[in-house]
Amino acid sequence: MINNLSDQDWLNDSGPEKDVILSSRIRLARNFNDFKFPNQSSKDEKDALLSEMCSKLDFLAADYKFTLMEELTENERNILQEEHLISKEHLLSPAGKALFLNNDQHISLMVNEEDHLRIQILHAGLSFEHLWEIIDQLDDQIDARLQYAFSEKWGYLTSCPTNVGTGIRVSAMCHLPALSISGRIDNILGTVGKFGLTVRGVYGEGSGSVGEIFQISNQITLGHSEHEIIENLTAIIIQIINEERKSREYLVRNNFLELKDNVNRSYGILKYAYQLSETEALKYLSRVKFGLDCNLLAEKLDNNFFSELLFKIRPAHLNYNNDLNQNNLNKKRAELIRNKL
Amino acid sequence: MINNLSDQDWLNDSGPEKDVILSSRIRLARNFNDFKFPNQSSKDEKDALLSEMCSKLDFLAADYKFTLMEELTENERNILQEEHLISKEHLLSPAGKALFLNNDQHISLMVNEEDHLRIQILHAGLSFEHLWEIIDQLDDQIDARLQYAFSEKWGYLTSCPTNVGTGIRVSAMCHLPALSISGRIDNILGTVGKFGLTVRGVYGEGSGSVGEIFQISNQITLGHSEHEIIENLTAIIIQIINEERKSREYLVRNNFLELKDNVNRSYGILKYAYQLSETEALKYLSRVKFGLDCNLLAEKLDNNFFSELLFKIRPAHLNYNNDLNQNNLNKKRAELIRNKL
Repeated sequence: MINNLSDQDWLNDSGPEKDVILSSRIRLARNFNDFKFPNQSSKDEKDALLSEMCSKLDFLAADYKFTLMEELTENERNILQEEHLISKEHLLSPAGKALFLNNDQHISLMVNEEDHLRIQILHAGLSFEHLWEIIDQLDDQIDARLQYAFSEKWGYLTSCPTNVGTGIRVSAMCHLPALSISGRIDNILGTVGKFGLTVRGVYGEGSGSVGEIFQISNQITLGHSEHEIIENLTAIIIQIINEERKSREYLVRNNFLELKDNVNRSYGILKYAYQLSETEALKYLSRVKFGLDCNLLAEKLDNNFFSELLFKIRPAHLNYNNDLNQNNLNKKRAELIRNKL
Repeated sequence: MINNLSDQDWLNDSGPEKDVILSSRIRLARNFNDFKFPNQSSKDEKDALLSEMCSKLDFLAADYKFTLMEELTENERNILQEEHLISKEHLLSPAGKALFLNNDQHISLMVNEEDHLRIQILHAGLSFEHLWEIIDQLDDQIDARLQYAFSEKWGYLTSCPTNVGTGIRVSAMCHLPALSISGRIDNILGTVGKFGLTVRGVYGEGSGSVGEIFQISNQITLGHSEHEIIENLTAIIIQIINEERKSREYLVRNNFLELKDNVNRSYGILKYAYQLSETEALKYLSRVKFGLDCNLLAEKLDNNFFSELLFKIRPAHLNYNNDLNQNNLNKKRAELIRNKL
C-alpha cells in the first residue's frame, strides 16, 4: 500500500493566488506504439506493458513508488481518487492497472487507465508554467525510452478523440464564494464555455458545485499548442480571480456585518456539530475559508485547514480503518472537524 | 430610578422543577373603597390614592422602593416590563401610576394600573404554595390599613370582570422543548383550555410561542377559592412537567445524535454569531438550555444563563444606554451573548 496517503506536501505550500485558486493541475494522455489501447487489450497484454514500462522507465525508481492497483484495497483506491491522484476510471476493474506516485505525491502516472499512460502533476495555487516545465521534461524522458503513438497529422493518439492532439488537460480548482454569494457565478461560468473551457464541480465530471468550488479546464486539445492552451486558460482564470476579488471587496464593503455573521456562524457550526454531511461540511468550510481570506473570521486558523479537510472529510478517508454507514460517516466527519478546529 | 434593574436574585435560585418551570407568578387585583377605578379617575384622584397608600402603607418603606412611573424614562419603564415587574398596561400614560418594588425585586405593587393595586410575586421554579403564603400575608397587611372594595356576592371588585372574585392570576412559565420538538405541544396545550387555563407566549398576551416557552395561567377567578385555583393549576402543571420529561427521555434515547448535534450547533451559533434577532436568539438559547438539562451540551455553562439572557437580550435592556436601530440591536444582542458564552 501507499504510505502517508494524506501527507500531501504540495497542498501545504501557499501557492500563488491561493486565496482564490486552490490548486492547478496538468494532465497528459499518452499511448505507446506496439500496444493495444487498454480498452481493447487483455490482462496479459496490460501486464506486458507494465513490465516494459518498469524496465524502460527505471529512472523513476528513485523518486516514484510503483503500485499495482490490484494490490490495494478498494478503500485505498478510493482514497487515491479522493485526493485526485488517480481518476475514477482508474478505480474500476483494477486488473492490469498501476500507479507511479512520486514521493511528494504531486506527480502521478496512471498506467492502463483509458490510455496507456496518464501523467498528472498537481500544485497548490496558480502555477501552470512551473507545472508545465516539470511535466514536459518528464514527458520527454519517457518518450526517449518508450515510443509514444504519435501522428504528424493528429498529434498524440488517444483512446478518446477528445484528447487527441496535445493530449493535455489543464485545470484550476477555483474557490469562488463571493461570486456565488452575489449570484454572479452562473453568468461568469456560462461565459467560460465560449472560450473552449469546461466547468466541473470539485469532484469532477457530473459533480455539482459543492463548497463554492469550481474546476475549470480546457476542452479542446487539438489545433493549439500546449503553450497556447495554458495561456488561454491562465488568461481566463486571471479574469475570474479578479472578478472574485472585486466581488469580495464589494461584499465586505457593503455587507460587512452579514458576512461576518455568516462566516463566524459557519465556524461555530463546524466547531460544535455532531453530524455533518459532506455537502453541509463543504458549505461551511467554504465560508470559513472565505472569512479567513477576507479577515472576517474571529478565530485564528491555519490557512491550510481547507485544502486538508477537503480530502479528509470524504467517505474513503473517513472509512479508512472502519466500516461506517452514512450516519456514522457524518458523525465521524463532524468529530474530525471539531478536533481540527 | 430603580437600582440594579437586572440583578434579580429571585431568578438565580434553583427553584423546584427548574428543568421545566422557569418561574412561578401570583398576581392579585385589588381596588379600594372611596376611590374611582383608575380608568375613570383624574390625575388628581390618582395622586390622592398614591398619597393615601404611601401614608397608610408605611410598613413597606423598609423593604420596598417607591417610584412614580412618570419619573422613569420610557426605556426604564420598558426594562421593568421586560423583567415582568410591571405590566404592559402600566407602561402607557404613566401619569399617576406608581410602583413599589421590594429590594429582592420579586414582589411588585403596581398602583393605578387597570386596578388600584396589582400585587405580584415571582419566583424561580414551581413554588406556588410558598408564593401564596407571602402574598396572602402582604394582602392581609394592606387590607388591614386600607379597605379593599369587596362584595359578599362577587368577592373582590375589579376594573375588568375577568378578574372579579378572587382577583387572582397564577401562572407558570414553562420551558417545553421536547414537547415542541416532538410535535406533541399543540395537543397538550389544547387540552389545557378544558381545565379553565390559558396559554400565552413568554411575552404575555398575543405573543407567539418563541423560545419554546409557554406561560400557563388560570382564566377563571370567580367561583373557586384561591387554594382551589392554585391546586388546579399546580396539578395540570405537574402533568405537563411529567409529559415534558417523558418526551425528553424518549427523544434522548431515540434521537441522541440528532439532539446532541442540534443542541451543540445552537451553542456554536450563539457563540459565534454577529447578529441575532430576538426570535432567533431565543430559539437557540432554548435548545442550549434543553441540552444543559439533558446533559447533551459539550461545553460547561452556568444553569442561570437562560433566565438571565431571557431578559438581557430584549430591546429595552439592550437599548439601555444607547439609541439603537434594529440592526444595531441585533448586533448588540449577538455581542452580549458571545461575551456571555
